[in-house]
Amino acid sequence: MRIPSLALVFSTLALASAAYAEEGMWTFNDFPAQKTKAAYGFEPTPAWLDHVRLSSVRLARGCSGSFVSASGLVLTNHHCVRECLDQLSTAKDDFVTRGFSAKAGPDERQCPAMEINQLLEISDVTARLSKVTSGLADKAQNDARKAEIARIEKECATSDQLRCDVVTLFNGGRYDLYKYRRYQDVRLAFAPEAAIAHFGGDPDNFNFPRFCLDMALVRVYDGGKPAVTPEHLSFASTSPKAGDLTFTSGHPGTTRRLKTISELEYLRDVDLPATISRYAELRGMLTEFGERGKEQRRISLADLLGVENALKGLTGRHQALVDKRFFATKQSEEKTFRAKLEADAAKRAAVVPAFAAIETSMTKLAELRAELNGKEGHRGFGSRSLAAAVSLVRWASEKDKPNAERLPEYGDAKVPALKAQVLAKAPVYPELEIAELTFGLTKLREALGPGDPFVKKVLGQASPRQKATELIRGTKLRELSDRTRLFDGGQKAIDSSKDPLILLAKAIDADGRAVRKKYEDEIEAVVKKNSEVLAKARFETLGAGTYPDATFTLRLSYGTVKGFPHRGQAVEPITTVAGLFDRATGAEPFELPGSWIRAKSKVSPETPMNVATTNDIIGGNSGSPLIDRNGALIGLVFDGNIYSLGGDFGFDPELNRTVAVESAAILQALKNVYEARRLVAEIEGAAAGS
Amino acid sequence: MRIPSLALVFSTLALASAAYAEEGMWTFNDFPAQKTKAAYGFEPTPAWLDHVRLSSVRLARGCSGSFVSASGLVLTNHHCVRECLDQLSTAKDDFVTRGFSAKAGPDERQCPAMEINQLLEISDVTARLSKVTSGLADKAQNDARKAEIARIEKECATSDQLRCDVVTLFNGGRYDLYKYRRYQDVRLAFAPEAAIAHFGGDPDNFNFPRFCLDMALVRVYDGGKPAVTPEHLSFASTSPKAGDLTFTSGHPGTTRRLKTISELEYLRDVDLPATISRYAELRGMLTEFGERGKEQRRISLADLLGVENALKGLTGRHQALVDKRFFATKQSEEKTFRAKLEADAAKRAAVVPAFAAIETSMTKLAELRAELNGKEGHRGFGSRSLAAAVSLVRWASEKDKPNAERLPEYGDAKVPALKAQVLAKAPVYPELEIAELTFGLTKLREALGPGDPFVKKVLGQASPRQKATELIRGTKLRELSDRTRLFDGGQKAIDSSKDPLILLAKAIDADGRAVRKKYEDEIEAVVKKNSEVLAKARFETLGAGTYPDATFTLRLSYGTVKGFPHRGQAVEPITTVAGLFDRATGAEPFELPGSWIRAKSKVSPETPMNVATTNDIIGGNSGSPLIDRNGALIGLVFDGNIYSLGGDFGFDPELNRTVAVESAAILQALKNVYEARRLVAEIEGAAAGS
Repeated sequence: MRIPSLALVFSTLALASAAYAEEGMWTFNDFPAQKTKAAYGFEPTPAWLDHVRLSSVRLARGCSGSFVSASGLVLTNHHCVRECLDQLSTAKDDFVTRGFSAKAGPDERQCPAMEINQLLEISDVTARLSKVTSGLADKAQNDARKAEIARIEKECATSDQLRCDVVTLFNGGRYDLYKYRRYQDVRLAFAPEAAIAHFGGDPDNFNFPRFCLDMALVRVYDGGKPAVTPEHLSFASTSPKAGDLTFTSGHPGTTRRLKTISELEYLRDVDLPATISRYAELRGMLTEFGERGKEQRRISLADLLGVENALKGLTGRHQALVDKRFFATKQSEEKTFRAKLEADAAKRAAVVPAFAAIETSMTKLAELRAELNGKEGHRGFGSRSLAAAVSLVRWASEKDKPNAERLPEYGDAKVPALKAQVLAKAPVYPELEIAELTFGLTKLREALGPGDPFVKKVLGQASPRQKATELIRGTKLRELSDRTRLFDGGQKAIDSSKDPLILLAKAIDADGRAVRKKYEDEIEAVVKKNSEVLAKARFETLGAGTYPDATFTLRLSYGTVKGFPHRGQAVEPITTVAGLFDRATGAEPFELPGSWIRAKSKVSPETPMNVATTNDIIGGNSGSPLIDRNGALIGLVFDGNIYSLGGDFGFDPELNRTVAVESAAILQALKNVYEARRLVAEIEGAAAGS
Repeated sequence: MRIPSLALVFSTLALASAAYAEEGMWTFNDFPAQKTKAAYGFEPTPAWLDHVRLSSVRLARGCSGSFVSASGLVLTNHHCVRECLDQLSTAKDDFVTRGFSAKAGPDERQCPAMEINQLLEISDVTARLSKVTSGLADKAQNDARKAEIARIEKECATSDQLRCDVVTLFNGGRYDLYKYRRYQDVRLAFAPEAAIAHFGGDPDNFNFPRFCLDMALVRVYDGGKPAVTPEHLSFASTSPKAGDLTFTSGHPGTTRRLKTISELEYLRDVDLPATISRYAELRGMLTEFGERGKEQRRISLADLLGVENALKGLTGRHQALVDKRFFATKQSEEKTFRAKLEADAAKRAAVVPAFAAIETSMTKLAELRAELNGKEGHRGFGSRSLAAAVSLVRWASEKDKPNAERLPEYGDAKVPALKAQVLAKAPVYPELEIAELTFGLTKLREALGPGDPFVKKVLGQASPRQKATELIRGTKLRELSDRTRLFDGGQKAIDSSKDPLILLAKAIDADGRAVRKKYEDEIEAVVKKNSEVLAKARFETLGAGTYPDATFTLRLSYGTVKGFPHRGQAVEPITTVAGLFDRATGAEPFELPGSWIRAKSKVSPETPMNVATTNDIIGGNSGSPLIDRNGALIGLVFDGNIYSLGGDFGFDPELNRTVAVESAAILQALKNVYEARRLVAEIEGAAAGS
């Protein structure tokens, strides 16, 4: 967390301090309107804030969006509806590749697993919770708080159409009740081809300049009819220019801005480099695996894209942490905070030791990391079938325990997620499984050493490839029926199984549990407790003049349209349709779909395509509307630049940029490329009526 | 460079200070005998030092060794004679796999490209050089020094059997003349199978415990007969124990212990992570490429092993730099040195600004790195043929320039190396070339971005794989005759060539030269000049009480047999033959050769196999004898542990370990596994006679 008022004390930070104003993922009930007034001469009114809040939506499985008509039309990203597109596709009709456009209302197709939430109300329940917990000891306090939260949520959720969550902010400094309207009938109205939605693929991912139409339109239904949504955003009639004030209203997932320097150093020096190196090697393996043939390319593509996206994300975080200027800012913040604590005798005694306790834990974690990941965090050493076997073995022994005593991922609330993993219908490919398990076992041997007893238990006398081949050829767990039988059959079914993966999962279960317990007791518990001590002290010191770490709840961020420096060169903040056609080579991932090639003469080349802004966002903000001071929609957030990944740890006003599709590109595409007249009329009707 | 006498000032270093005594790659004419006397009660006499020096040899192409008989027998590593084994092998007789043992003298086979040097004399020529340079300006000084060095070397090398080098020590603080006896007739006497020489392969490389017989015996000949070598080492009759004093006498290649903190931070945060990630991805690609089939495995294996070895080396260096204790020591050293400079008005003005100049250069380098590597440091983007094309194009334009004006790698002295690269007879495999070039072009696009003009120039509208396939299928440069024609044909041949690789090399030549010039002028020159300023100031401040950075000249290091802590556990310093048999699984790289399986009952299981010591070594020390206080050979250095890689930047007495084959294992193997009676008798005769 940045401390703008103190930053000025340090001369090295003074230059950046003006830009600091743009940092912040603010809650709607605590937006610092006076700051935008001072900096931009614009103070959002309560009505403005209510309108934007009620026009914003959350896709429950991890994205954001906004209403763009009075009839429930929701604008979000293509990558936020990708799962729905996959589920609706058939071998004949691949909507991911060729896109989807519902000519009329009845053509809109229901997304099987989509839920959309609209935030109706926020209320502070901190006092109510304090009342029931005051005077109690640690564990009793925790239990009482949990029980009261359950009561509050139950009282609030008076119908199936409502969802109520008590949200923990500032690590427990504040508790707010968020009340949502819940829409469970969501239908797909429009999606372009993947080739234009993700134009540029991995090379352009997290980069800028950018030329993507990463958009989709879905509609919420109520009682089988389009829902009535009077609060919605209209498209702005003008395009944003450099320097314009912009807002994003969306749901940032998580940030770790309160991490101490020792935790950041652990990430920078130990965890990120090791993870990046592993993923890079896996990427090389999977890319080359795809060269075995077309079918091998197809079956490995999803894993490859996942690894590439993760690799970009990890590399961006690492780059932020090794940026000297950025890291020095984090160090200064901690120093300032620490000095404040040192100046207060009570806090010096009660709070300051938390820094050292966390630092010691990081040293321990660096030592335990290889063993922890090798024995417990391995997820089947890269094999889906072995991961399922591990879950099946554990489920059999956990399911009969009282809920509170189980490993958390086997608790009642997690059973649906567990089933989704273990009983997944998705096909498992032995050839890919062997390659990925070989990789995982090779890495295990590398991490713990060939002489390690656990490694010997797993590999025996075999090489990683021999063992992987033997296990995957020998298992029947690829069959859903077999997994279902073992899932339902409990300990007895597990005990009598001769499946080699079940046998291996049983053999290594105790080792995994042991190292996990060691980690939880000796490291995680210490870090958690001391982080809470620091967070509380920080909230007491700074109060609510700042914003809480992201919690996948609605936040408002303000910023401006602005380029950034990259390797000594200035990157302009706005790209155009002309640039898109320039960048297209005809070779994947720079291959335009036929619709765009045919429509080239109909789309004005100077139409702005994508825009970079200084808004403070993070994963979960995908699909957020980009809004001007009039509350009109000027863009659709779909990514950040590479420096935005450092936003996990802190906001860097010099470099961190939000990336959005401009509203003009969306309208031009709908009108002239896809001829989606019905939706254009609906959106423009919304604009006219606003 | 460590400053032991000042280290005590800092309380955080006090604990480690006793162990600091073990740091140092000392020259033989400046060995601190009083230090070993104080610490171990043993003071090497001048006679002891002469005996060890004259018994030590250098393999001119990058290794160390020692005479072990009076008839020119030299003990070195298997990996130091690997090239010779390759060259002597035929399709029928693969000496790498099955080993080599000359039954009688005439069976010893000449190694085509091996030269061995024995250091006869060291003399200080600093004064002579100062005399000719005093009073001259920078460039004139440099020219005068070069001319005088050439004169000194020429005066000294009075016959072909002598080699004389003026060695620059302490960045020019001192110049010594090294006079060597040169042996150019070197013959292979014995090498075991690669499977036991490198038992454990990549998983065990740079690790400990270790179980390798990485040894070989060659013999120097003089006038067609075994050379007479009265100065040689005898094998010790007892095995070393934990705590025993040990010496290594060998030729460490290069160290960078004088790097400033900002240079180390650049390596830690920018260069090493990026290089590690790239090599890791390449490793994944090459490993999987080998799965295409047996032939693909064969043609890619050498590249894979090279990448794996480099990856270990880079990772070890990174681990050293992110070790907080190690880095804090480096920071303290710089702080202390800087404080001394600050305290001296003249040095404050003339020397202190060098730190800031280097730091600024590192910031510039971080910005330029991607462009520099992408446009100039790419080595044919991973393709041998394209690398040859680049060299051919440059050679044509450089060869007619005066020698002093050429790019250094095209200077007269470098022509043999250039020819070895461009006119290599080794087969080039199109399938592997396409895979490696695809990888290189993908990385280029990633580094500079798809919109970069240089990337567009290279790729055009093609994807990396399309372009690589087109180029490699279209080139004729795989034919040696074609490369020879272009090498000899000069600019005219290049100008008329239609080969696609030549055309590409021509198209990108100017870009590469431009970014290189920018780097050399704006970064390299600044760093070089300021590094010299710092080194000179350091030498003036500390004098010769310390040792110079490694220069691939003979150095003596002292230490003890000692384990080390690794991930919270203590690693014992000595392994045994029993441990070797325990570790053998039958699966490569833990597969014992048949000779060892058959001889199992004949080799005493408690025979010590490998040993870890605290001696301070680095690459180039491979093959160095490990010597006891009696001057007897107790082991053969072949590696270091993973922490030894940090020895590049500084010696960490807690963790840095030298790894050697114990002399007992060598003798047991020669006697009982290989029944090399002739060589055993010769070695034991040497022992008896010593």
